[in-house]
Amino acid sequence: MEHQSVSNLLTVEIKEDITSRNNAQAEVLRQAVKERKVFYLNLMSSPGSGKTTLLTKLIEKLKLSYRIGVIEADIDSDVDAKTIAGTGVKTIQMHTGGACHITWQMSKEALEALVLDDLDVVILENIGNLVCPAEFDTGAAMNLVLLSLPEGDDKPLKYPLMFEAATAVAVTKIDVAPVFDFSRERAVENIRRRNPSAPIFFTSGRTGAGIDELAAYLRKEIEKIKNA
Amino acid sequence: MEHQSVSNLLTVEIKEDITSRNNAQAEVLRQAVKERKVFYLNLMSSPGSGKTTLLTKLIEKLKLSYRIGVIEADIDSDVDAKTIAGTGVKTIQMHTGGACHITWQMSKEALEALVLDDLDVVILENIGNLVCPAEFDTGAAMNLVLLSLPEGDDKPLKYPLMFEAATAVAVTKIDVAPVFDFSRERAVENIRRRNPSAPIFFTSGRTGAGIDELAAYLRKEIEKIKNA
Repeated sequence: MEHQSVSNLLTVEIKEDITSRNNAQAEVLRQAVKERKVFYLNLMSSPGSGKTTLLTKLIEKLKLSYRIGVIEADIDSDVDAKTIAGTGVKTIQMHTGGACHITWQMSKEALEALVLDDLDVVILENIGNLVCPAEFDTGAAMNLVLLSLPEGDDKPLKYPLMFEAATAVAVTKIDVAPVFDFSRERAVENIRRRNPSAPIFFTSGRTGAGIDELAAYLRKEIEKIKNA
Repeated sequence: MEHQSVSNLLTVEIKEDITSRNNAQAEVLRQAVKERKVFYLNLMSSPGSGKTTLLTKLIEKLKLSYRIGVIEADIDSDVDAKTIAGTGVKTIQMHTGGACHITWQMSKEALEALVLDDLDVVILENIGNLVCPAEFDTGAAMNLVLLSLPEGDDKPLKYPLMFEAATAVAVTKIDVAPVFDFSRERAVENIRRRNPSAPIFFTSGRTGAGIDELAAYLRKEIEKIKNA
């Protein structure tokens, strides 16, 4: 343990071996799902950042063109799965029994339970957490990371791996911007420090802002896999 | 793996062995800190729920009566530690190198670096996460768990262990209640399902609401340990 002393602020660095776990096997899963022409999206964010609401809005836009399945991962409860099942898409509730992440094995089991032959798109709503889920490759083709406006524009600095792992970022709840000290410019700048290229969408489940743009982007990605 | 089929909603239960890790050693640490008449508080919540802001307000109230030290635990960055150090209290920045929790060993190292003989109160601002930190007993005398109003009143159902582990709960950012669909009654009901007795405070760092009540509660707890 090293200490650095700067007046009344000490820094303690605790080095831990956080290895990329089973990434090779997740890659095999990713290729297998792609070969079956299924677009597999992993949705990650902190608790209460609007994953389920955004997902409901995206399903409304996409379900007329595609057969969608959803994997709802939770520590406990089935509140979200019931909401998603209410949209009519096939929904799997996965309970991790306390674990804060989804491994490629859990991901594979859930995909098998969904029956991929009947689907074009599978969306995994991961555990609400900005840390652990980013460490475990689920085998998804794409990671969509949400940054909830009320959480603040500094979160990409504090949870770097999550934003590094993002294929795309959606800032959510932009309708409440007037009551928060959140700067779009600072948010983009902080995301860019961790991720130079991920497209960034500004959305609101309540007003519908940005949902069409995000859905159009996802359509393109879905078509790439269908036409590969 | 078991499946339950209810129309289009399947449930998959993944059993994992989440054992209570090193709780006996955390208990030894807790007793040792108490014997030195130091009140050790563990502050936990999800990312961006206002831990640092609340902490700054509590330090303002408590620092005239007590010598306070703060342990800032982060994956990365020292944004919060600089803010807290700005209040004048002794601050340790702990970087976990990716880990989403603080173990009793990390906790002990940080307490030693702070030098307990010079302090009455130590506050650990844990990693922003509603899952992992609750699994690891830090040896603190008390767990204060924050529930940020924008996250929604259903979070205690979805992150049960965190609310079970709470000695007290503070709902934060209540000043933005008018723009969110958050019910105090539902929040209390959901917390009570997981925790029958923890006192619940409704606070706002921006307006100062509830801060005096929470500070008064903490004073009582600090005095219990000083006078034990």
